[in-house]
Amino acid sequence: MATDSSTSVDLESLRELINVRLAQLVPEGHPRGPAAAARHSLLAPGKRLRAVITLVAARAQGGRIEDALDTACAIEMIHTSSLVFDDLPAMDDADLRRGEPTTHKAFGEDIAILAGIGLINGAYEVIAKSKALDAERRMEIMRLVTRAVGWQGLVHGQALDLASSNDDDAIDAIHEGKTGALFIAAAECGGLCGGACTDEERRSLRAYGRSLGFAYQAFDDVLDQVACEQTAGKTTGRDEGKATAVLSASASLASAKTLANRQLDNAVAAAGEHSPLAKLAEFIRTYFAQTIAA
Amino acid sequence: MATDSSTSVDLESLRELINVRLAQLVPEGHPRGPAAAARHSLLAPGKRLRAVITLVAARAQGGRIEDALDTACAIEMIHTSSLVFDDLPAMDDADLRRGEPTTHKAFGEDIAILAGIGLINGAYEVIAKSKALDAERRMEIMRLVTRAVGWQGLVHGQALDLASSNDDDAIDAIHEGKTGALFIAAAECGGLCGGACTDEERRSLRAYGRSLGFAYQAFDDVLDQVACEQTAGKTTGRDEGKATAVLSASASLASAKTLANRQLDNAVAAAGEHSPLAKLAEFIRTYFAQTIAA
Repeated sequence: MATDSSTSVDLESLRELINVRLAQLVPEGHPRGPAAAARHSLLAPGKRLRAVITLVAARAQGGRIEDALDTACAIEMIHTSSLVFDDLPAMDDADLRRGEPTTHKAFGEDIAILAGIGLINGAYEVIAKSKALDAERRMEIMRLVTRAVGWQGLVHGQALDLASSNDDDAIDAIHEGKTGALFIAAAECGGLCGGACTDEERRSLRAYGRSLGFAYQAFDDVLDQVACEQTAGKTTGRDEGKATAVLSASASLASAKTLANRQLDNAVAAAGEHSPLAKLAEFIRTYFAQTIAA
Repeated sequence: MATDSSTSVDLESLRELINVRLAQLVPEGHPRGPAAAARHSLLAPGKRLRAVITLVAARAQGGRIEDALDTACAIEMIHTSSLVFDDLPAMDDADLRRGEPTTHKAFGEDIAILAGIGLINGAYEVIAKSKALDAERRMEIMRLVTRAVGWQGLVHGQALDLASSNDDDAIDAIHEGKTGALFIAAAECGGLCGGACTDEERRSLRAYGRSLGFAYQAFDDVLDQVACEQTAGKTTGRDEGKATAVLSASASLASAKTLANRQLDNAVAAAGEHSPLAKLAEFIRTYFAQTIAA
């Protein structure tokens, strides 16, 4: 995603901040070892959307970007860990990710698994050590992120996805677990990094994250259908016919796009239209419209 | 391990406490899903040694068992997670563990991986939510446990083990990572749960954990050589010829036993001979002597 001059947040510079910090958070290690494998997946080009949400939410709450940076990076590490695991032969068996060979293709399955463990563990280590936040706030962030990953979050969503149940309720649950949970945590944790949040503010942040996550997943499914492997930089077409694809619920590209745009409207409404978070949602709308058109 | 009336700690009742709490910490979930798979591995009969160390260290420090129980269970969840991952086909490819089919044999590789993720994540969730400890102390425990798991801990040890380097330095590093790191964290975190620790006390707890871990690993390697599959309850003989086995360094059963006993002496010295931790070390000495003799 390039910088959008109409937003108050310079997305390019946020991504740069995130990339620099991520590179500091995982050691170089042995060139064929788990840390190197983690760096391979973590530092490959990525949109850093979840981390950006965290930073923008902190700013929207009146806080400083630098106080939220470690939490944002931790969430990105969790996300990358989930990609490493999901790509494994026993899961989606994917060869390409972010334009590069998947971690197990490049380092072997055993080292990829250790890299995934190292990334999720490292994320919690980063939160535990984050000097910018007092212990109480770090604990609350830990509580939110572990919930997003756990038995009702990413782990649950991926298990439902593997079972590929086909009814609409299951599809919503898969989305909520696989994508929504971490988007929600990114928004709410960012808000907490930015300052004290009222219960109402936290509810709005969660609603924002949920809607943005759903919109993102829907757009991503559309892209998966229309993009060739080269453009998307990962193995595509694989979601076709799977229950995860919003498309299989909505039956057409057009209705998936309508659905996504409606969710973005909800996200803007939850954040308040003058919030930097709303501008981030509008930026995502433009980005996907342009990418899909191309 | 049965109760040893000569110790001031009733090991059976500690294990019972741990087992009851563990069963509360992972939800039932779908019968074929990741939570059920995690329960399969977590609730299978086990010695719970790491968790027991945590509880005994808390008591040795003058604290209450119940204040350390969640931390002890979190460490046991981390340990179980490492077993689930290590048994995978891409790792040690084991069929039996704790007398039961390994998790991937019983639930499939994909669900086993999700169970492993859920267990490690769940461990951190349990620490984050542990009501018995203030946020500062929970953060410090989180810092110690994530370090024990991470790039210089379990992940590192397993990567070295997979690479099976054969020199003595590598063997020590494998032990330190695969076993030592979590034993050290168990002892030090237990001490922290039990009350304020001086730097000197923390150093002693770490020395205790390191020596006990080494002794345990050495005895376990001896058992692996002499026991039949049925007695050990897991696939045995697999470590033979691998660099992990203390045996390959020490060349004979007798010298491995000598090594283990010397490490137990070190553990007793580090704890102080009247400490409940010393009594736990002596209990382990007796337990292994009897088991190996049988």
